[in-house]
Amino acid sequence: MPNLSQAAHELLGSAAVATVATINADGSVHLSSAWVGIEDGEIVFATLPDQRKLRNLRRDPRIALTIHGERVNEWGLQEYAVFEGVARITQGGAAEMLQRLAHTYLGPDVVFPGMPNPPPGFITRIKVERIRGIGPWQELDS
Amino acid sequence: MPNLSQAAHELLGSAAVATVATINADGSVHLSSAWVGIEDGEIVFATLPDQRKLRNLRRDPRIALTIHGERVNEWGLQEYAVFEGVARITQGGAAEMLQRLAHTYLGPDVVFPGMPNPPPGFITRIKVERIRGIGPWQELDS
Repeated sequence: MPNLSQAAHELLGSAAVATVATINADGSVHLSSAWVGIEDGEIVFATLPDQRKLRNLRRDPRIALTIHGERVNEWGLQEYAVFEGVARITQGGAAEMLQRLAHTYLGPDVVFPGMPNPPPGFITRIKVERIRGIGPWQELDS
Repeated sequence: MPNLSQAAHELLGSAAVATVATINADGSVHLSSAWVGIEDGEIVFATLPDQRKLRNLRRDPRIALTIHGERVNEWGLQEYAVFEGVARITQGGAAEMLQRLAHTYLGPDVVFPGMPNPPPGFITRIKVERIRGIGPWQELDS
């Protein structure tokens, strides 16, 4: 992963919902949204059902993900970060990860998904290869 | 264009910045952000320079665009709309469209882009073929 700046860490750890882009079988783009976090230097998200974005990633693991920041730059444009990389999917642990992310996205006392015996679900881990966008996302060479 | 609901019209006319997805030459996804509006039943955005998303769209006009809403549904998930369609690009009029959009995105008195003699730029018009996401974006058959 390129060196993430403090601002990028804060963005990925915030309650801002990410937009996830994967590639459909016909080469068109599939967009959806997801709660994301950072674990072991990778961007992660969890899904209970086997969604289209997961089927797309098994066929083509290239992924791009964007999160809008809150700041506006000197031209009046809202900051956003784009993380491009490769995803791998593992089975299990989705409900536990969603519960952890729900504390960030919904509140410290929220129980999520709040169903008895949730399915094992899937975790997607993204190895970031490139960071783009408007904002101080990538750390300068140190 | 599928029949847009009142909620979709309001979202496209709001100050929420859109994420625009196009297809790179190698088949990967390019994400960027844009101010958008509706004109003549199409989603529009304007760019002064000839950006990568425009070069991508000339090669493959398929586009997907998403905007996050403000409401949260009964599962705690933030609403978002995805508009999928086909784009066409025309030259000229970008500064004027950016000025109109700046009134929505930055404020009623803002002068934008605020440079003397801006280049003609480009306008991208999207014919929407499909609407997805979480929220009441598509009007029921009437």
